Amino acid sequence: MVSPATSRLAASLRPLSPPGKSRFDRRLAKILTHAINVFYEKGYEGASMRDLSRTSGMSLAGMYHYFESKEKLLFLIQKHTFTTIVDELREKLVSAGDPEERIRILILNHLEYFLANQKAMKVLSHEDEVLKNGFGAEVRAVKREYYRICIGLLEDFKRASRLTFSPRVAVMSLFGMMNWIYTWYNPRVDGDAAKLAGEMGDIFLRGIRNGKNAKKAARVN
Amino acid sequence: MVSPATSRLAASLRPLSPPGKSRFDRRLAKILTHAINVFYEKGYEGASMRDLSRTSGMSLAGMYHYFESKEKLLFLIQKHTFTTIVDELREKLVSAGDPEERIRILILNHLEYFLANQKAMKVLSHEDEVLKNGFGAEVRAVKREYYRICIGLLEDFKRASRLTFSPRVAVMSLFGMMNWIYTWYNPRVDGDAAKLAGEMGDIFLRGIRNGKNAKKAARVN
Repeated sequence: MVSPATSRLAASLRPLSPPGKSRFDRRLAKILTHAINVFYEKGYEGASMRDLSRTSGMSLAGMYHYFESKEKLLFLIQKHTFTTIVDELREKLVSAGDPEERIRILILNHLEYFLANQKAMKVLSHEDEVLKNGFGAEVRAVKREYYRICIGLLEDFKRASRLTFSPRVAVMSLFGMMNWIYTWYNPRVDGDAAKLAGEMGDIFLRGIRNGKNAKKAARVN
Repeated sequence: MVSPATSRLAASLRPLSPPGKSRFDRRLAKILTHAINVFYEKGYEGASMRDLSRTSGMSLAGMYHYFESKEKLLFLIQKHTFTTIVDELREKLVSAGDPEERIRILILNHLEYFLANQKAMKVLSHEDEVLKNGFGAEVRAVKREYYRICIGLLEDFKRASRLTFSPRVAVMSLFGMMNWIYTWYNPRVDGDAAKLAGEMGDIFLRGIRNGKNAKKAARVN
């Protein structure tokens, strides 16, 4: 029942390394994609390991052996998604310019990943509080890291332009603008990630830029 | 098994009038509140009529007799929520002033309802696409009406200030900012609806105001 392929897959899962580009990582990514589809269609609570096994083509015993529980599958999906977004953002920020430009990179990076992985993003939004204990703590740590990077970008912008907005409300408003997309996005009407990122970036950056101090700064200079 | 009270409740449910303030409307509202709690805790897919009956204190047979299905309960929750938000907004807009003021009223109305009914709003966000056929169509009609009112407010503002933003992206960005709150709102850190509505209103209104045409208009005047 346990093929050499799934055995190697298991090896690549323990310890859980961030998915890279090996054959087994690709196999893992494929199973996670199937799991995302099932959670997307049935919701996490409504999905069973049997559904997950049927859809991914792995035997039920194999599913239990390698993934232990649907909780672990949800954990792998969440960890994989947030780690990928954070890694890609870091990479793009290495060579990036001024504070405004860096916030625009954050928005584009988020929307590009989001629109390319809409089902995953819906599953993440909906099952945000399901994971408990170690799994939950590990995912929260990656999310906190992402939040910390984003707050840092906003604080750099705030300092550089002498503004007064609350970085917390601003960053959560921005996440809301971006994450809500899965309820309304229509590629034929709304265009691609770059177009949307431009429009949302305009609204957001103008919105936080023109605070009281911005007016004061404009008068002083 | 069917008490006079539940029989009168049933009478008040058919035809389904928007909840008002009668004794039976209050009873209905109470059962809906229990149902919201169950859907909130277990998700719609994970909740059973048995859970709903246990929590609300109505017999299982009574639940089936008066509510028919959990789908109908979700329908009542969605319809009640959106109808209330739309009715309250309309009422507040009757005497409201300039286009900016009217958008601020929309934001405050949405956030006030939202923060007072956070569990309901999470259930609505998560179970957005569950309802099919007649139930789904009826809820979509109320939501479309709300969307239409909001787009109208943005278009009035756009015309009055000669701006160029896309009302669709703008209104969906605003909904995202407001609806995402259930994932992060902490009353001790973030204050009440009025404070948040002020901050989000500032970000949003400045964000849509300072488009290309705003600059042009400023030069012309």
